[in-house]
Amino acid sequence: MPFFWVSIHKDILMKKIYYPYDEFRDDLKTLTQKIDVEFDAILAVARGGLSMAQMLGEFYNIREVYAINTIGYEETQKLETLKVFNIPHLATSSNILIVDDIVDSGDTLKAVLSTLKSRYPDKFFYTASLFYKPTAIIKPDWYVKIADDWIEFFWSEDLR
Amino acid sequence: MPFFWVSIHKDILMKKIYYPYDEFRDDLKTLTQKIDVEFDAILAVARGGLSMAQMLGEFYNIREVYAINTIGYEETQKLETLKVFNIPHLATSSNILIVDDIVDSGDTLKAVLSTLKSRYPDKFFYTASLFYKPTAIIKPDWYVKIADDWIEFFWSEDLR
Repeated sequence: MPFFWVSIHKDILMKKIYYPYDEFRDDLKTLTQKIDVEFDAILAVARGGLSMAQMLGEFYNIREVYAINTIGYEETQKLETLKVFNIPHLATSSNILIVDDIVDSGDTLKAVLSTLKSRYPDKFFYTASLFYKPTAIIKPDWYVKIADDWIEFFWSEDLR
Repeated sequence: MPFFWVSIHKDILMKKIYYPYDEFRDDLKTLTQKIDVEFDAILAVARGGLSMAQMLGEFYNIREVYAINTIGYEETQKLETLKVFNIPHLATSSNILIVDDIVDSGDTLKAVLSTLKSRYPDKFFYTASLFYKPTAIIKPDWYVKIADDWIEFFWSEDLR
């Protein structure tokens, strides 16, 4: 896989790796082989989980494919508050798979999950991602790869 | 492009054409070259428009990427009613681009557009799709290709 170095902070260099569609497709296939529960709705964390949600919806023949949004507010220099909005109507679903491309700090997934659990205390939520960083504050139920590098997903790069 | 024939009704044969990711990417690039208005939010008609919305959001650097759902109820043998739900909160946006993969009968796009216009009468809505059938009851503001055939999108096929 081609890569080059990118400067994250002034003293830190991270490997920057392009993640092409073909690898995404193969990893998503792997993810479906790992997921060992039944679910009846898929919820994408926008924007990262949208393409995954579409393909998984087709694969599992689930039309209940929803999206949820988050926005971060910088409250102080160090503290960021996450607002979760556009919470979908889940009346017809009991078991919901939440998907995102990468669980990095884990802040987003944790905020989404706790918002959904408090809105829908009687439903079951599962979480899946392509990438996971072991330093995250939450671990998805299923993931495909550990993220050591800076990943440039095809959806960010291919239209440039 | 490889294709084979598929029987739609007992007397109708349609060409069935596989639509790979690379063609999607190129067509989406073409779509961005056609769209000649400014917009500040992207709304995917789920499931068809989800991957498009993610890539366009990245391309235009728009984080306001939302989804909307529709479901069809068969009321009589001939009449189908479309329910539009999970209408996103659009308070921070004025010009919204609605995207879907294909405008076929046009029923979905028309229902989505009229629901949104009645909920948000002061906002501007634009519509874009990859494929458009000239027999549809609504024509998107921008599209890339005329659909003559039965299109098997990569997101429906590639995980099988």
